[in-house]
Amino acid sequence: MATTVKTLPLAAPDAVPCCPPITSAELSEADAVRMAAMFKALSDPVRLRLFSRVAAHENGEACVCDIADVGVSQPTVSHHLKKLKDAGLLTSERRGTWVYYRVEPSVLAAMGQMLATGP
Amino acid sequence: MATTVKTLPLAAPDAVPCCPPITSAELSEADAVRMAAMFKALSDPVRLRLFSRVAAHENGEACVCDIADVGVSQPTVSHHLKKLKDAGLLTSERRGTWVYYRVEPSVLAAMGQMLATGP
Repeated sequence: MATTVKTLPLAAPDAVPCCPPITSAELSEADAVRMAAMFKALSDPVRLRLFSRVAAHENGEACVCDIADVGVSQPTVSHHLKKLKDAGLLTSERRGTWVYYRVEPSVLAAMGQMLATGP
Repeated sequence: MATTVKTLPLAAPDAVPCCPPITSAELSEADAVRMAAMFKALSDPVRLRLFSRVAAHENGEACVCDIADVGVSQPTVSHHLKKLKDAGLLTSERRGTWVYYRVEPSVLAAMGQMLATGP
């Protein structure tokens, strides 16, 4: 009997791509809704620091055990990480005891591209 | 009698420069507070569209009369533009009847640099 191996896509194909540099074209209403939600996820200082800790970690992935000491309680850390996941900025995977977080590169690229200056 | 002309600085000299790419270094607590405030200014879809309309306008400057038709009331437009100014993303200047808004390029560059991906 053949074994069926199922693979799951890492991200929906239409997860991004958005948007042209903000200096080159007006955002559509729909794109503004999507991008505003991403910026909202980074609009809290503690959440932004958690995101930066994951992003700057080796290979863009970090164990929650390595990033959680940002001066707030563990439930608050969990709440912020959930918000970042809900906004599509982080993905997570449980391995044994710990959950590992990873930056979603396409989302980071979309935000960076939109705010890029120059030609 | 001599006439004294006072000039005001357009922006504090330390208004930016911040920060290295988020994938290369963790944000400090102070930088996270500053950058989160900028992202918060872009976290509302209408505000983000207004910002994009100014940014995409010729020479990065727009009359409020050219950008205000985003489907909300004039007081709401004014409120959002004030938030963008308070966050340092826009500057404004009255000329005759109209107020003109301009993107603060150093702030846009700081956000773009922080979210830039690549080496």
